Amino acid sequence: MVPKVEGPEDIHYVDRLLAQLEARAGLERPILVHALLETARGVNEVEAIAAASPRMQGMSLGPADLAASRRMKTTRVGGGHPGYRVLADPSGDAERSGTQQDLWHYSLARMVDACAAAGILPFYGPFGDIKDVEGCEAQFRSAFILGCVGAWSLHPVQIDIAKQVFSPDPHEVAFARRVIEAIPDGQGVHMIDGKMQDDATWKQAKVMVELADLLEARE
Amino acid sequence: MVPKVEGPEDIHYVDRLLAQLEARAGLERPILVHALLETARGVNEVEAIAAASPRMQGMSLGPADLAASRRMKTTRVGGGHPGYRVLADPSGDAERSGTQQDLWHYSLARMVDACAAAGILPFYGPFGDIKDVEGCEAQFRSAFILGCVGAWSLHPVQIDIAKQVFSPDPHEVAFARRVIEAIPDGQGVHMIDGKMQDDATWKQAKVMVELADLLEARE
Amino acid sequence: MVPKVEGPEDIHYVDRLLAQLEARAGLERPILVHALLETARGVNEVEAIAAASPRMQGMSLGPADLAASRRMKTTRVGGGHPGYRVLADPSGDAERSGTQQDLWHYSLARMVDACAAAGILPFYGPFGDIKDVEGCEAQFRSAFILGCVGAWSLHPVQIDIAKQVFSPDPHEVAFARRVIEAIPDGQGVHMIDGKMQDDATWKQAKVMVELADLLEARE
Amino acid sequence: MVPKVEGPEDIHYVDRLLAQLEARAGLERPILVHALLETARGVNEVEAIAAASPRMQGMSLGPADLAASRRMKTTRVGGGHPGYRVLADPSGDAERSGTQQDLWHYSLARMVDACAAAGILPFYGPFGDIKDVEGCEAQFRSAFILGCVGAWSLHPVQIDIAKQVFSPDPHEVAFARRVIEAIPDGQGVHMIDGKMQDDATWKQAKVMVELADLLEARE
Amino acid sequence: MVPKVEGPEDIHYVDRLLAQLEARAGLERPILVHALLETARGVNEVEAIAAASPRMQGMSLGPADLAASRRMKTTRVGGGHPGYRVLADPSGDAERSGTQQDLWHYSLARMVDACAAAGILPFYGPFGDIKDVEGCEAQFRSAFILGCVGAWSLHPVQIDIAKQVFSPDPHEVAFARRVIEAIPDGQGVHMIDGKMQDDATWKQAKVMVELADLLEARE
Amino acid sequence: MVPKVEGPEDIHYVDRLLAQLEARAGLERPILVHALLETARGVNEVEAIAAASPRMQGMSLGPADLAASRRMKTTRVGGGHPGYRVLADPSGDAERSGTQQDLWHYSLARMVDACAAAGILPFYGPFGDIKDVEGCEAQFRSAFILGCVGAWSLHPVQIDIAKQVFSPDPHEVAFARRVIEAIPDGQGVHMIDGKMQDDATWKQAKVMVELADLLEARE
Repeated sequence: MVPKVEGPEDIHYVDRLLAQLEARAGLERPILVHALLETARGVNEVEAIAAASPRMQGMSLGPADLAASRRMKTTRVGGGHPGYRVLADPSGDAERSGTQQDLWHYSLARMVDACAAAGILPFYGPFGDIKDVEGCEAQFRSAFILGCVGAWSLHPVQIDIAKQVFSPDPHEVAFARRVIEAIPDGQGVHMIDGKMQDDATWKQAKVMVELADLLEARE
Repeated sequence: MVPKVEGPEDIHYVDRLLAQLEARAGLERPILVHALLETARGVNEVEAIAAASPRMQGMSLGPADLAASRRMKTTRVGGGHPGYRVLADPSGDAERSGTQQDLWHYSLARMVDACAAAGILPFYGPFGDIKDVEGCEAQFRSAFILGCVGAWSLHPVQIDIAKQVFSPDPHEVAFARRVIEAIPDGQGVHMIDGKMQDDATWKQAKVMVELADLLEARE
Repeated sequence: MVPKVEGPEDIHYVDRLLAQLEARAGLERPILVHALLETARGVNEVEAIAAASPRMQGMSLGPADLAASRRMKTTRVGGGHPGYRVLADPSGDAERSGTQQDLWHYSLARMVDACAAAGILPFYGPFGDIKDVEGCEAQFRSAFILGCVGAWSLHPVQIDIAKQVFSPDPHEVAFARRVIEAIPDGQGVHMIDGKMQDDATWKQAKVMVELADLLEARE
Repeated sequence: MVPKVEGPEDIHYVDRLLAQLEARAGLERPILVHALLETARGVNEVEAIAAASPRMQGMSLGPADLAASRRMKTTRVGGGHPGYRVLADPSGDAERSGTQQDLWHYSLARMVDACAAAGILPFYGPFGDIKDVEGCEAQFRSAFILGCVGAWSLHPVQIDIAKQVFSPDPHEVAFARRVIEAIPDGQGVHMIDGKMQDDATWKQAKVMVELADLLEARE
Repeated sequence: MVPKVEGPEDIHYVDRLLAQLEARAGLERPILVHALLETARGVNEVEAIAAASPRMQGMSLGPADLAASRRMKTTRVGGGHPGYRVLADPSGDAERSGTQQDLWHYSLARMVDACAAAGILPFYGPFGDIKDVEGCEAQFRSAFILGCVGAWSLHPVQIDIAKQVFSPDPHEVAFARRVIEAIPDGQGVHMIDGKMQDDATWKQAKVMVELADLLEARE
Repeated sequence: MVPKVEGPEDIHYVDRLLAQLEARAGLERPILVHALLETARGVNEVEAIAAASPRMQGMSLGPADLAASRRMKTTRVGGGHPGYRVLADPSGDAERSGTQQDLWHYSLARMVDACAAAGILPFYGPFGDIKDVEGCEAQFRSAFILGCVGAWSLHPVQIDIAKQVFSPDPHEVAFARRVIEAIPDGQGVHMIDGKMQDDATWKQAKVMVELADLLEARE
């Protein structure tokens, strides 16, 4: 695990050191590398980091270091902040409603693209407020929906949350199975429950079903 | 229409093939190219794709393929997902409110910038749930606000939605006309209804009014 | 202040002109440059712009010009737009709720990363609707949370808003001081109020406390 | 004429200054730029310099500044140096012969390629020893053969040399005309005086004949 | 064989076309590509061309097209030109001696480096004057010494020249065998006939001996 | 001394290792790095290598490894090869003269430019044939003229050669002093012995005189 990766040169350096250690130890299976994305410059170069070496196994977003690097004004480790919100237009005398926004959308979405393009695994990192199980669950689920395959657990209670969150919803899995049954070869355009299905939704369904099958097989 | 564009080299390839076909067929007007942005790597290289050839006419976001490429956990084609939300801080014993977030903000905003910088047209792609006319309308309008000039229609009902959404709001057009009347040459700083107007808002008003006039002229 | 910066070449040009003027005038302290990020191409190249010259002091997001450059369909200068929203799934016969989204998340987050990586200061620019003090406050606070250090004020009332917003929340400062007291050297893992604290949260706390101390010293 | 060009950024700077001067003066024909290649870094970036702007008209090799920039140990302006030679293998007791080498081959050949690829004109610059007419002629002719279209003249005697040298040899022109007569359309393979002629030699012949015709027309 | 390669994009295009043809024809062994280096822009990008695809097998210098592309003033296909010479300093009243220079040194040396770095084979191309067997031999041998592995033959007489030239000199092979015998493992520093031998000369000797063994085995 | 440098990443790696060793040892003066240019890929990237780190002190051409890497057909360490020659055109029945060419012109000239642009020192490496003092002297002098500041010595006899060669010729130094006396400020155009002198030749003269003064001061 390589912390505070700033650019591909950090991975290259680790790559060579590991190659020398492996050679000395006579290892045949390469040691893999997991990078922590936790600086502003790292985000700027996330695509190059993800593709820096065949050793790259995955990447985790580290929200606390990243926040400090950007001078974001939050002392939380992951999760939202009540100050980041969009205010609705005024409507008569009623109090104007505001909706809180996701602090991490850009960072997480760009990291997921970088990882997917390089064929490595994106993870969400730590959620610091261990008592806030609901907040943790919301954060983990958002990361899961956006494409992450897992998260860090700082406490046993978070392991349970992660187990639950990083498994696809049974209703969605059932729907995905129907899509695959209806279009076994992924070709043509079909309607299921009034929703268009084609090779693209078939691929989405595959992602869902394969993950469900994999998790079932593990248990 | 070129699907699953991964990088500028895909456009270069199509560019040359078309040049040879045009030469053989004796065509004088170049055949234009519309690219589908529907892979993680494509998003990483969207600026280079948009600028890859003078044939580039526009680009559409394909949310289903893109979701599959990123392993996003949604089987929907466009629209939101209830699992992507930010949870508000707890407040007494009341149930904590959460606000759903836009899955596509990063992808769409970056694509719009890439297209605008290259002088080509950004489109939102398909919305799969044909029965969900409200969801379709919300998705189309978000894309419109962020800079897209149109969307795909999978069904006649979506054509009507698109027609309505991709026309600017009459109130905004009226306001924009007032801005342009008040500052015909786009210079200086003015206040209209307590809102500062200058060359920048004048340009915004131009975007709005020109689109309205164009659409009116078509009908 | 350099408006409508499109790429690093704009900064290079200003850089050389200033060098010649400084040489002619016999200046010894270099004149610094503040760039306005207000075009689509500028966002595409924001990292290169931020790092284009040691003269770069900071960068401001100009939402009105940027919106016009992208053909976003808003005539407002900063703030949200009611048309950019995500619609929740239907739930029985109740009206579907929708939540408004932040138009500027991607642009602002990417600009903050570019600035932080280059060691320069990110600002939010103007908020045009002077009468809408609540909207202004929400916009300024969002920018502050995401990492900006200030904003432009078009009117005395906005100066007061800015003063209030760009100071960290006293509760958060108090909490940050507790973090630093508990882990003076920023090492090890500690729990405070059930929230994990380590070198990363310690750095976040430092950002908060240093800003508070700086502002206090000024007054 | 832009001296001591180090990289494309130097041309970009001149480009913008000229654009502003032209705009102020209401000029319609763009002012062109001729760059002097006379630093080591300039040679490193010669391809980028040649392609830096549509204003680029040509480039000249400045051997004295280039020699100083490289710390070459010659005080001559162009021409050879007796110290740069290759020694033949010893052969019995005879004195070993050595052959003097061209100091400028790499610099000139790379500059010609950069210019040809960018569609601009390569020139040899000054030859400093005005009394050495034979040396001047040899230097000019070498540059001509390698692809330059002209040279600088520091004295009337050098003008005469240049006129003579930068005209193709009448025997070669006559041969080139025979090639073009024999293969008017530049297709197929032919033998002339036992030398293979094809589309490539036809193009060489074209270069020769067109230059001869152009020079004849001028007189 | 791909003529007039200007940059890696030409190889990419051929690469994809071949991939499609192979797929249609059910071929399992990939069709390889040999590129002709015969334009100024090609030389500028020769490293990228050599590394453009795993299909790249080798590259040949095409001197006639290259000369035309550069507007070199020669109508010959390969070989030297009497006009490209360096003049010695005057020495009393004796006629000044001049030494003819190699027109192709830069182009050939850079191409050899590009090929060697990419692991592909460099060739010299055609020599046009079929009657000039001595000139052909000199040209072929120069290319051989600089690192080429072969040349094109336009006539049976050139085949014999090529066979003779592209075999290493028996005296050099004998010397190389002595080097390898003296330092079988390529380690340490040794003196043979007063010439320092180490791992580097051992590698040179290997190149020589392996080529000799390979050619012997073929016959 | 870093052998077989292939690209800037090799220097980066050494750079970091040294930084860690220096930190551990408490060194305050940075350890400098001298790179050996002795592979084809190294030549392709020589500009990036020279500029890879502020630790770079200089670079040496290693002709034996470079020859092996390129499969040049020479077993010598530096110097020329009788097989690399240009043949003059036939002239009656006389034997055609050929002139031997410099195997290393491109490699050395490009390395000198890379070093000069990066502000580091270029050296010629070893000359293997210790008995061939004339050949050694010719090789060293060529490197000196082209811009190298020194060479390696494998034997005491080569130290003497190097001392003599890498000092500028007294006649040239005397001439250079006259240039500087005649134009003390390096401005304007002057004639000395019929040779044009200006700011460029003044700089050449400076190179010569400063080297002479430096060497004199050392003795």
